[in-house]
Amino acid sequence: MSEKPTIAILGGTGDLGSGLAKRWLAAGYSVVVGSRSAEKAQAFAKELGGAARGDDNVGAAKSADIVVLAVPFGSHEATLCEVKDAVQGKIVVDAAVPLVPPKVSVVQLPPEGSAAQIAQTLLGEGVKVVSAFHNVGATKLHAGGRADCDVLVFGNDKESRDIVIGLANEVATCGIDGGVLANSAAAEALTSVLIGINRRYKVPGAGIRITGLPTPVPQ
Amino acid sequence: MSEKPTIAILGGTGDLGSGLAKRWLAAGYSVVVGSRSAEKAQAFAKELGGAARGDDNVGAAKSADIVVLAVPFGSHEATLCEVKDAVQGKIVVDAAVPLVPPKVSVVQLPPEGSAAQIAQTLLGEGVKVVSAFHNVGATKLHAGGRADCDVLVFGNDKESRDIVIGLANEVATCGIDGGVLANSAAAEALTSVLIGINRRYKVPGAGIRITGLPTPVPQ
Repeated sequence: MSEKPTIAILGGTGDLGSGLAKRWLAAGYSVVVGSRSAEKAQAFAKELGGAARGDDNVGAAKSADIVVLAVPFGSHEATLCEVKDAVQGKIVVDAAVPLVPPKVSVVQLPPEGSAAQIAQTLLGEGVKVVSAFHNVGATKLHAGGRADCDVLVFGNDKESRDIVIGLANEVATCGIDGGVLANSAAAEALTSVLIGINRRYKVPGAGIRITGLPTPVPQ
Repeated sequence: MSEKPTIAILGGTGDLGSGLAKRWLAAGYSVVVGSRSAEKAQAFAKELGGAARGDDNVGAAKSADIVVLAVPFGSHEATLCEVKDAVQGKIVVDAAVPLVPPKVSVVQLPPEGSAAQIAQTLLGEGVKVVSAFHNVGATKLHAGGRADCDVLVFGNDKESRDIVIGLANEVATCGIDGGVLANSAAAEALTSVLIGINRRYKVPGAGIRITGLPTPVPQ
């Protein structure tokens, strides 16, 4: 892995995926936008400019050091199965949130506990699954700045968590070590709560911050 | 219900319960400390001073307008069964968090979804269960001030949620409407994450704040 890893973003043409792509491109990372259609991904990468390339999901996963999953929960398992071979030995950053339409503002966690645990089971122990970016409002990322919220980062491998905390520090106020992968349930559930808060308080992108930490947060 | 309701705090001699008692007493509420032992509760209430009384859990629940459950998860179901008759028609504020020792920093939600949903099922539809105060560090409350964190408030009855948001505003930065009771899973899971953050970042009481809301937060 070179000093700045190449990041594939599966679902990279979506709202969150493209927001993350913009921030990481601005921070000097090479980004491969993944999509079901290579043509769509390539056209989108051209719009993004900079060190952005486009490919289908498998091609994007193959060519990157770190693979970020920013697909809707409905495509989560299918995408995982599709890229399983291509991501062995890599870090997979799962941003999927188990929203169940139409009641997306009601917490409905899967029986497995969390989307992240589903990913780890499907990909196997040869993949370091880290989950993060569940509570980042994409609006802020598209506006060109870092989101004023913290990003809770979960995973069973401490070194992989630290790498993703570094990536989170580029897109939001602060990446925070949230512990093991099972803890992802907290951030995944919180997404439904934040969607409800957006509606009730008529705001575009509520997020969370962790209080009581030293400033700056130790890395 | 008079202008300021009488609040019973079951588990009121514990760390969180006594912290809440202090804040509400300071804000002019009548507080009844509930404990398994009436004597212990009465002695503790004497120490608290002000408009504090002590009683056993059932007596405390009977004599209050709002009943707060601040007992450890291990005593949660037993306490609910004990006070079921005494709380019919009232608001029960459940602060229980499903921590499973020894791994209290790992999210382990119950099959029912959350402690709050267990409470609602056990108490029946005649009780308005609201869940809150999962993520408040008791240390700050005992130090005499409001905790610098937000309190997510969940419940299926909007009017009861609003009453508890008012109580939350007395103990922390802000009470926030988190939606239906099922959403309590988010705050309950987050408690394990915050316990882990306290350990990893060596801080006494990490909490959360919701970002992206107008200031002051509309009530």
